[in-house]
Amino acid sequence: MEDLALFTDLYELTMAASYFDQRMFEPASFSLFIRNYPPSRSYFVSAGLDEALYFLEDLRFSPDDLDYLGESGLFKRDFLSYLKKLRFTGEVYAIPEGRLFFVNEPIVEVTAPLIEAQIVETFLINTVGLQTMIATKASRCVHAAGSRKLVDFSMRRTQGTDAGMKVARASYIGGFVGTSNVLAGKAFGLPIFGTMAHSYVTSFESEIEAFRAFTRSFPDNVILLIDTYDTLSGAEKAVEVAKEMAQQGVDLKGVRLDSGDMARLSKEVRRILQKGGLGKTMIFASGGFDEFKIKKVLDEGGDIDSFGVGTKMGVSADAPYVDMAYKLVKYNGHPVLKLSPEKQTLAGEKQVFRFTTSKGKLRRDIIALRDERLEDGEPLLKKVMREGKIVKQSSSLSRIQKIFQDEFSRLEDRLKSIERRRCEYPVVLSPKLKSLQSRTIRKYKREELGES
Amino acid sequence: MEDLALFTDLYELTMAASYFDQRMFEPASFSLFIRNYPPSRSYFVSAGLDEALYFLEDLRFSPDDLDYLGESGLFKRDFLSYLKKLRFTGEVYAIPEGRLFFVNEPIVEVTAPLIEAQIVETFLINTVGLQTMIATKASRCVHAAGSRKLVDFSMRRTQGTDAGMKVARASYIGGFVGTSNVLAGKAFGLPIFGTMAHSYVTSFESEIEAFRAFTRSFPDNVILLIDTYDTLSGAEKAVEVAKEMAQQGVDLKGVRLDSGDMARLSKEVRRILQKGGLGKTMIFASGGFDEFKIKKVLDEGGDIDSFGVGTKMGVSADAPYVDMAYKLVKYNGHPVLKLSPEKQTLAGEKQVFRFTTSKGKLRRDIIALRDERLEDGEPLLKKVMREGKIVKQSSSLSRIQKIFQDEFSRLEDRLKSIERRRCEYPVVLSPKLKSLQSRTIRKYKREELGES
Repeated sequence: MEDLALFTDLYELTMAASYFDQRMFEPASFSLFIRNYPPSRSYFVSAGLDEALYFLEDLRFSPDDLDYLGESGLFKRDFLSYLKKLRFTGEVYAIPEGRLFFVNEPIVEVTAPLIEAQIVETFLINTVGLQTMIATKASRCVHAAGSRKLVDFSMRRTQGTDAGMKVARASYIGGFVGTSNVLAGKAFGLPIFGTMAHSYVTSFESEIEAFRAFTRSFPDNVILLIDTYDTLSGAEKAVEVAKEMAQQGVDLKGVRLDSGDMARLSKEVRRILQKGGLGKTMIFASGGFDEFKIKKVLDEGGDIDSFGVGTKMGVSADAPYVDMAYKLVKYNGHPVLKLSPEKQTLAGEKQVFRFTTSKGKLRRDIIALRDERLEDGEPLLKKVMREGKIVKQSSSLSRIQKIFQDEFSRLEDRLKSIERRRCEYPVVLSPKLKSLQSRTIRKYKREELGES
Repeated sequence: MEDLALFTDLYELTMAASYFDQRMFEPASFSLFIRNYPPSRSYFVSAGLDEALYFLEDLRFSPDDLDYLGESGLFKRDFLSYLKKLRFTGEVYAIPEGRLFFVNEPIVEVTAPLIEAQIVETFLINTVGLQTMIATKASRCVHAAGSRKLVDFSMRRTQGTDAGMKVARASYIGGFVGTSNVLAGKAFGLPIFGTMAHSYVTSFESEIEAFRAFTRSFPDNVILLIDTYDTLSGAEKAVEVAKEMAQQGVDLKGVRLDSGDMARLSKEVRRILQKGGLGKTMIFASGGFDEFKIKKVLDEGGDIDSFGVGTKMGVSADAPYVDMAYKLVKYNGHPVLKLSPEKQTLAGEKQVFRFTTSKGKLRRDIIALRDERLEDGEPLLKKVMREGKIVKQSSSLSRIQKIFQDEFSRLEDRLKSIERRRCEYPVVLSPKLKSLQSRTIRKYKREELGES
């Protein structure tokens, strides 16, 4: 991991400096959770934990970082010396990547000396928030596409390069088959996809010459982009080239449509392909697809085998952020919370227990205190870090994808609706957590607001 | 710049391999432009060029990259040897950062041997698209806030770490005074801001103890967060602490509100501050602000001196992408374009000329051929790279911010409306460009579609 210790809001460091002045080094626990469902969502897919843990394990301020902080004039020398030696030494519980979770459930809980647990807030929210948002968005696209395959085409419009990488990874967790992002292919071992752009076609004397040239370079992997001038005339030319290829014993793998009325054009292109004897040539569609457009085009009878899904998935365009928060829930042995309107937090270290029906369907979750044991409930948060060290190596991405697919298949269909939230998955608090919560709220109201 | 040569769609490389097979090394020109205005926008602020040019200047494939491409089995050895030696040797014209531009105007034009010009597409769209989108969004927030100061608080919810950095930079270009992002402060020399979070308050025995402790650590820079339990009771405690500070000869700089009805609360907090003799203490507000919420709270009489603007600016929530494209416009001396519905491009190398009124107000732009000279029009695209080398060092960010502020002050107010697009800034094509465009379209229709 590159040097990201300073990828933090300044207030994390000013708070840390003040804690240092007060000698407040006692253990603190923070919960990472999502406060509200974004529009039309009823679940989240856990993603991003892997990178979060590497960040914690590698956390250190470089001499360069410390020089910069020194020059800012904000910090005293003894605090900077403390930062120089600071490492993350805490423990982390988390819901593994690929698992489903719901509003208010802690996805990560961090316990460490106060300063260590505090200063990692910004990065944890940033990385887990983005990847969870994208894995969730991707799962909606996959759900809308049914059995058709989806490829991540978003990287040119992701919000920066880091997002480009994380979107490739998280969309794969959410069920995509791969990405156009070569660097993500290299970094994560993801399958990579891609053939040609319009500029390829326009750089040749004619469209058919472009098709022929590409076929010569990549005979085994030809998907011709046919909409540069006119989709149907492009399809006719593709048939012509496919016939030439057949004489060399090579099949045309597919054609790509990238503009126009996709439902109508795909049906007409299919007719042209079949008339040309290309029964196995696949129709690949791209251009503005997300779960809504996939559903619309398929509802209209679009005859498409596979989709390139770009921008709108890659920025989660209909819900481009999640309301993820990282809140202190326990300090020095005492449960704590904040009372701010609509932003009240759940005190104490917690565990989420998941209950399923006899057929394995997801039935409900109970958020409990971490040391509770609820019969028949599966505890979702696992201990993933101890004394600042990752407890076990992460699963492979294909394994994580499988974990997601298995659990998603056991989620009720009405919770998967892409158009609106019809109902909420039942999540309740255990009696013990509820009672801790009431006691803590009463204490604050009494002590801070003078209520009796 | 880190190793981003593989931050590219796979098709850039498959196309390149095919160009290589065809020995197509002639010069190609590509235009980078935005096809449509996002909702309620009528202008864009140029941003991101600086990083784009560094990327081009440093472009090279590492041995590791080449190994990965080799192992993919997609590419022949002679192409990989070619990639090994590949550097960007082209020339670039661009609209400088901070300048305003409009739909269809080329913001960057790249001319280089075809492969070099092609494979940089993904990164150029990614970086210029994001920063332009954010500088534009930030400018809307600044416009809505009038004389009040804005600070970028978005980094925890930006889409990844790279976005966190670029949002800090681009929002500064759009008129923000600084950021909470410490790493961006270090990297770009931006002013950094921040004091305390709710967890700071909750980690103390009581709110007032937290206020006192912070005051001891940072006497010169105290902005107290007062909504952890109840905003008005927090304000009373802030007054109490301010009185204690006054005895040490120190002023309370401000209080921060982060939840609730901001218009009402800010007025009541102001009354409490003034009653407590704190006439100069500033009220800082954060929590879900963007141009729309800033306008609403100010319209309702909110008494706020400064805003922390976070998530919704940092992801440009109401318009989280721009429809930016990078299209081949000339190859081997011939103008080219694509005819795809609603995605037609403008052929040829171009220049944008800006015309102003006698009072300096922006009047209209003409997109012309690059070698045209239009009297009284200011040519916006400058030569920024020659033979792969940056022509001159970039301006400082404060200089770029000033360039933006000056030009924005000369843009008609009705083009700055944040609520809806009332009109479009006039952009027309020069007669010569129009004629080239018609000739090229006719040629393609004749040759590709058989029209006469």
